[in-house]
Amino acid sequence: MYINICKIKVRYVETDKMGIVHHSNYYIWFEEARGEFIKQIDFTYEEMEKMGIMLPVVETQCKYKSPSFYGDELTIETFIKELTPVKIIFNYKVIRENDGKVIAAGATKHAFVNNSLKIINLKKHYIDLWNKLETLI
Amino acid sequence: MYINICKIKVRYVETDKMGIVHHSNYYIWFEEARGEFIKQIDFTYEEMEKMGIMLPVVETQCKYKSPSFYGDELTIETFIKELTPVKIIFNYKVIRENDGKVIAAGATKHAFVNNSLKIINLKKHYIDLWNKLETLI
Amino acid sequence: MYINICKIKVRYVETDKMGIVHHSNYYIWFEEARGEFIKQIDFTYEEMEKMGIMLPVVETQCKYKSPSFYGDELTIETFIKELTPVKIIFNYKVIRENDGKVIAAGATKHAFVNNSLKIINLKKHYIDLWNKLETLI
Amino acid sequence: MYINICKIKVRYVETDKMGIVHHSNYYIWFEEARGEFIKQIDFTYEEMEKMGIMLPVVETQCKYKSPSFYGDELTIETFIKELTPVKIIFNYKVIRENDGKVIAAGATKHAFVNNSLKIINLKKHYIDLWNKLETLI
Repeated sequence: MYINICKIKVRYVETDKMGIVHHSNYYIWFEEARGEFIKQIDFTYEEMEKMGIMLPVVETQCKYKSPSFYGDELTIETFIKELTPVKIIFNYKVIRENDGKVIAAGATKHAFVNNSLKIINLKKHYIDLWNKLETLI
Repeated sequence: MYINICKIKVRYVETDKMGIVHHSNYYIWFEEARGEFIKQIDFTYEEMEKMGIMLPVVETQCKYKSPSFYGDELTIETFIKELTPVKIIFNYKVIRENDGKVIAAGATKHAFVNNSLKIINLKKHYIDLWNKLETLI
Repeated sequence: MYINICKIKVRYVETDKMGIVHHSNYYIWFEEARGEFIKQIDFTYEEMEKMGIMLPVVETQCKYKSPSFYGDELTIETFIKELTPVKIIFNYKVIRENDGKVIAAGATKHAFVNNSLKIINLKKHYIDLWNKLETLI
Repeated sequence: MYINICKIKVRYVETDKMGIVHHSNYYIWFEEARGEFIKQIDFTYEEMEKMGIMLPVVETQCKYKSPSFYGDELTIETFIKELTPVKIIFNYKVIRENDGKVIAAGATKHAFVNNSLKIINLKKHYIDLWNKLETLI
């Protein structure tokens, strides 16, 4: 199983009046981590969009175990949890670098759709992309 | 069971290059809906924070059934799914006003903590607040 | 001169660890205020985009006179400061409702462009829209 | 004059339905660039906040010359434009790496304040910090 490593540094704007990172930002980091994961199959997410394939999010979930703070350096580990011709589930672990702690863990489920947001069968219509994704499971 | 109604209008900045609302924004709307829910117990969330109680998010989850678009007028229905002395789970339904469709449904789980982010027993230490929350289940 | 009134309630996510609203959010509010202003000419911004006209931002500026806080109810007054066939400048005043204080004032300058982001002459190509904008100066 | 170089990669969430980066994000990048600039004086912004000094934004301004897109790799050049005992003005240039184009240029003005958001005289009360800032002009 391929695990992608993505580095994130917590931005000031990502904090809220509680002094910690606002929970919505983890999903933004997951998205960046996913973009870097996808590059491993020799496609950028930009290129996939130009080919007419998008991966809208159908479901998201995150458990927050420990808060993160402005300036924290984080590692996001991303891997494919499940892959079918019409959907893909990514899992994410957020690790704080200075103490090695897993501070959050989440998942996002995506449909494969075309420019008109209609579901497509990746295995049938984009076999090259499908084969590459399969090597990473 | 008390259900709070919160009105949201989709902002331009909430869209992304796919032309639809970015999935992270639903959690921001849930938070605003939760803030309005809490007012029903004659406390604003600001007042709770002044009393030294915060509700950091421990877990979030959302299913996206249909995309939403710039300018959409949405209704968020919020209710308590579960309440214990140390945590609370809210559920949310996002309904698009022009077609009555439930476009997303989610949940957020919160711990009751003090200013130092330590867990507190609401029933023991803030019985008034606890009693009011209980009337809404 | 027409002045549009737009109501904004400060969201929790808009605060940062300083405990006040992050300065970038004022530009998001200006955008919503601008969208409501534009409706006065019997066009929604969505409709303008469907006609192939967009108003990308070419310059923005804001002075912050007093901080705003979570839950603050704000009024944004928007008016046209300058209009030419190829650009428009909006001005904004942000007023806190509970004390009537002007807490910020800003401006945004926009080009009229088509779907390919090329500048268009509104007076020449969309005379109806131009005429309506002129009535609001 | 010291010029700090900060690298930013455009995030998906930073785009809007126009397909380009939403203009409010440039101010978020300026803030990160400013944080990296400040490290050059052997203080992190976190440390300054612990010493009781904050730099709230009093004024911001940005000219957008060319749009930026998802995945763009950007360089932000930051330098001090003006420094007095009670305020500091930073200037920023945003350069796209693949074509070397300056796509935006902006400025932010900050007051030196304490934890209660009262203005402080940096030269009088924090001479070490003042001396270090002066070496970078």
